[in-house]
Amino acid sequence: MNEAELLHFEDFRAGQIFRLGHHTMTAQEMIEFASEFDPQPQHTDPEAAKHSMLGGLAASGWHLGALAMRMMVDGLFIRATSMGSPGLDEVQWRKPVLVGDRIRLEGEVLDTRLSTRTDRGFVRFRFSMIRDDEPRSGELVMMFICSVMFRRRAA
Amino acid sequence: MNEAELLHFEDFRAGQIFRLGHHTMTAQEMIEFASEFDPQPQHTDPEAAKHSMLGGLAASGWHLGALAMRMMVDGLFIRATSMGSPGLDEVQWRKPVLVGDRIRLEGEVLDTRLSTRTDRGFVRFRFSMIRDDEPRSGELVMMFICSVMFRRRAA
Repeated sequence: MNEAELLHFEDFRAGQIFRLGHHTMTAQEMIEFASEFDPQPQHTDPEAAKHSMLGGLAASGWHLGALAMRMMVDGLFIRATSMGSPGLDEVQWRKPVLVGDRIRLEGEVLDTRLSTRTDRGFVRFRFSMIRDDEPRSGELVMMFICSVMFRRRAA
Repeated sequence: MNEAELLHFEDFRAGQIFRLGHHTMTAQEMIEFASEFDPQPQHTDPEAAKHSMLGGLAASGWHLGALAMRMMVDGLFIRATSMGSPGLDEVQWRKPVLVGDRIRLEGEVLDTRLSTRTDRGFVRFRFSMIRDDEPRSGELVMMFICSVMFRRRAA
């Protein structure tokens, strides 16, 4: 893909929606991630997790964020002039994600603004991680608001 | 550690500071994390990263968050009645973290409030990831504000 085909700052508009793929959670990846980064029994020990508040082995919230990042890269940044993110305005973990759950990610553009640096602008997205299987398809499991810098098209 | 020795909601007070350990970043862990969750060249390709805005191979922001989570578990949650987190109010990625950088994590209690559910309360922390080596020791590299639920002591 050449530079002109990549999505630049000017290509984003409030209200645009990007569908960014889906993922089905396995026990193995949950345990691997949590053993390294979030070693609490509800995320690492299937037996103990049965008796936890979450009702079974559940993905670490940071694991869901990392999976969302992967979907953002594969679904959007790979064909855009992303220059990274200064941060998130908000993150909500709304529902547990358990083994076998299928989730999908959607990004909605909330607003766009030019940077004081003339080569770039900021696009603010609401990313929604949504349950994509029955019986609770459509349920919001995680939401975060993220600003991303994109290069402007040359004048 | 028995139940009475664990930190409960009542043990937290605004202004308390928890020092939560440190970590020195390796290229291998950065590339492993980013290959799975944030496959962009500034995080996965040392050669390409030299020419990036960040000035060298840099940790994915979500990797820093995951490492912070690990330090929170090892340094605090393991000796507390943590019941998980509903989310973050804010996340700022302020400075790149490059190979060999040593970072430490500090948590400051901002405020505490009872839940409407009588068995628990919320503690809001500001977690600061701080550079811990020269020449820029003390520099804030990442900050996030996180609410955590803790069980109350039985009446």
